[in-house]
Amino acid sequence: MTPEEFRRAAHEAVDWMADYMTHIRELPVLPRVAPGDLMRALPGSAPEEAESIESILSDFRELIVPANTQWNHPRFHAYFSVSGAPPGILAEMLIATLNVNGMVWKSSPAATELEMVTLGWLREWLGLPGEFFGLIHDTASLSSMHALLAARAMVAPESRVEGTPKGLVVYTSEHAHSSIEKSGIAIGIGQKHVRKVAVGEGYRMRVDALEQMIEEDKAAGLRPCCVCATVGTTSMASVDPVAPLADIARREQMWLHVDAAYGGNFAVLPEMGHLREGWAEADSIVVNPHKGLLTPIDLSVLYTRRPEVMRGALSLVPEYLKTATDGEMANLMDYAVALGRRFRSLKLWFVMRAYGRKGMEAYLRAQLAMARELEGWVRADGRFEVCAPVELSLVCFRLKAGDDASRALMEAVNESGHAFLSHTVLGGRFVIRLAIGNYQTTAEDMRGTWAKVQEEAGRLVG
Amino acid sequence: MTPEEFRRAAHEAVDWMADYMTHIRELPVLPRVAPGDLMRALPGSAPEEAESIESILSDFRELIVPANTQWNHPRFHAYFSVSGAPPGILAEMLIATLNVNGMVWKSSPAATELEMVTLGWLREWLGLPGEFFGLIHDTASLSSMHALLAARAMVAPESRVEGTPKGLVVYTSEHAHSSIEKSGIAIGIGQKHVRKVAVGEGYRMRVDALEQMIEEDKAAGLRPCCVCATVGTTSMASVDPVAPLADIARREQMWLHVDAAYGGNFAVLPEMGHLREGWAEADSIVVNPHKGLLTPIDLSVLYTRRPEVMRGALSLVPEYLKTATDGEMANLMDYAVALGRRFRSLKLWFVMRAYGRKGMEAYLRAQLAMARELEGWVRADGRFEVCAPVELSLVCFRLKAGDDASRALMEAVNESGHAFLSHTVLGGRFVIRLAIGNYQTTAEDMRGTWAKVQEEAGRLVG
Repeated sequence: MTPEEFRRAAHEAVDWMADYMTHIRELPVLPRVAPGDLMRALPGSAPEEAESIESILSDFRELIVPANTQWNHPRFHAYFSVSGAPPGILAEMLIATLNVNGMVWKSSPAATELEMVTLGWLREWLGLPGEFFGLIHDTASLSSMHALLAARAMVAPESRVEGTPKGLVVYTSEHAHSSIEKSGIAIGIGQKHVRKVAVGEGYRMRVDALEQMIEEDKAAGLRPCCVCATVGTTSMASVDPVAPLADIARREQMWLHVDAAYGGNFAVLPEMGHLREGWAEADSIVVNPHKGLLTPIDLSVLYTRRPEVMRGALSLVPEYLKTATDGEMANLMDYAVALGRRFRSLKLWFVMRAYGRKGMEAYLRAQLAMARELEGWVRADGRFEVCAPVELSLVCFRLKAGDDASRALMEAVNESGHAFLSHTVLGGRFVIRLAIGNYQTTAEDMRGTWAKVQEEAGRLVG
Repeated sequence: MTPEEFRRAAHEAVDWMADYMTHIRELPVLPRVAPGDLMRALPGSAPEEAESIESILSDFRELIVPANTQWNHPRFHAYFSVSGAPPGILAEMLIATLNVNGMVWKSSPAATELEMVTLGWLREWLGLPGEFFGLIHDTASLSSMHALLAARAMVAPESRVEGTPKGLVVYTSEHAHSSIEKSGIAIGIGQKHVRKVAVGEGYRMRVDALEQMIEEDKAAGLRPCCVCATVGTTSMASVDPVAPLADIARREQMWLHVDAAYGGNFAVLPEMGHLREGWAEADSIVVNPHKGLLTPIDLSVLYTRRPEVMRGALSLVPEYLKTATDGEMANLMDYAVALGRRFRSLKLWFVMRAYGRKGMEAYLRAQLAMARELEGWVRADGRFEVCAPVELSLVCFRLKAGDDASRALMEAVNESGHAFLSHTVLGGRFVIRLAIGNYQTTAEDMRGTWAKVQEEAGRLVG
């Protein structure tokens, strides 16, 4: 494919991309496919001969898109609704063209320095002190795994050479994301040493329950290693009390990690300062711009006040990666398990500049306002109940008629293709989650979705 | 940014992208910047107000590109020269537009099924048996870390709940990639339990040395857990003897992982069948299409014959990720630490179709032929010596005049901007590495680069 052939095909692709953005509301959010449909529609082997780019693009439009769940749809409300806004998409086009691997400064000064610049900008938006060092990971799962690696290195520095010692303990809320437990498994702490601390009012981690667990573990000869607080839990977006947890972590010489992958994005808003309480005392904080700052997947940021601990835990520099500027400039590979590093900072740079702080704040406020408005609609309809405080852009609700009716309602809405909702279980009861986050979602979209929910509820429970 | 504003900006970006491809040879491969230059050129804070996309694209062209190392340049010969070919760049444009997270089947049937289809295609190209299950990771570092996680789960199934037990041992060549050792550190096996087995002829891992280490470790009460063979080491592209290593692994009930991140791509060629010897007996194999199959960074594939071990090691399904098709279709999150999954298979699908098997084979053969031709030129010039067998697309050479002269030569070529070479140390001696892999590299490029090397050598040693 010559550059001129690429130019023609890419212009065609761009027109499709812009059309997709324009007409996305006409697509069902959840595709109407059964398991295996796409596999059966595709050949079992790759072609022997080259195929034309036209036929590949045509198959993309005809086979792939209709089998896709439209994450960038304004009525995608499942999981944490995320969106990749147009400036970020532009940046991804350029990232792919440059095809950079920014493992050391020399392998791309631009990638290394732009990562430091953009994460400095974001640190300022988040009100974090300047000593916080940021690094981009692909996902929050990996960011949190690295936080636990640093925690292990701080509490048990022998881990690097000797292996993970027995008896390190990680504490997190019973509503923490599964990635905390998975990280504990991965780095050799063991699932049984990831304690699930009970929650109290507002589904927030109970400080007294944590303190009791720590005392019991110490009495049993175990070594408290890390507290993972969550700012915006997946099930209901609750916010753990980070400030008192920071006090406990300091007293017990534990690492404090804050999983603000979702909720942390709202900390950009001055009026949401309570989300940031205690952050300056944290050892690490993860915020996912791909979850709430309009950046295409994948871009997760891990900030740490102790980069030297992270580096000490992981740095390994073979001869073939030594360069003349080592020691002078950071080589970002030194802070991560992955050697390879895509030029992800470029998309954060595009998005932060294209929106500006005011534009980003307006976007975030609109999400919160739509969530509060929806909460009001739910409360005004006697068939429904709100199941958790609406603090961020997630509304949890159910039909008073019960679990079966609530599940049937979610499935009916999803099958209609109009919107995509997901669920959780709170206190043993089935709860529908409706998360808001798409850059194209309007108040009218929300009214339409709520009307659809009410319509399907009418069919189910009258 | 409206879809129409995006359309205009993206057409502008596409023209820049095609121009960049066309004129890339006019750019220095290594940028002429000092540490901190870009940071000083950029504002210390993000803008308050939104900026125009024109000004952002302009800064990209004027500030970012000149500070970038041009990985996609036909004379980029450092590390493992990789290239993201135009069909893969097109796919990345679409991936960003869809912004999919394929963690479970339902969250994108297309992403889940296309990953299975394309990895089936690639499995066939690699001559692997059908029981190998493939999963895409971002980088080989993470693929190998997951292989070690599975090895740990097979040998010590109690690891998941109890933590990594003491005394597990991983064996790999003294020339293995640093990611193996880093993975051993990360998952709690400990650096001292990652044994570096001596190499023999052709820098291949010595089977007798491995056997002796295993006997010594068993006698000391340790538990041999995993052998990591390398097909295409980073320093000199040597190939470990996988078949006898597989016999040892089976006898000792260890996991056999094959790190073929670079070299495995050449296993697509029928005439390179020796690269695949013993693969069918391996427990896991990593191959990086972003290193040798023209796919933009990042796309690493981990194949395993024991997906149930991987799943058992890592699967954790919280309520909010349960779906009606669980058990019917694979949910790819079950096999990885990362929950989030970009729609990476789309770019492999574009590339495999746009090249076809014959086109990919022709590309791979051309890389090998250029390496052999270069080897001939080096041997024909009495000032130089070839430092390792040229088996793949990497040529290791040095000036007979010694380390200082060789290092000065590499630096002179790099500073000229004409090409970018890297180095390693073999047997205590400084060696220049010249790796070939760009889709635009021609025989004329190679002649020009060799002429430049000879010219700089003339200045240094006459």
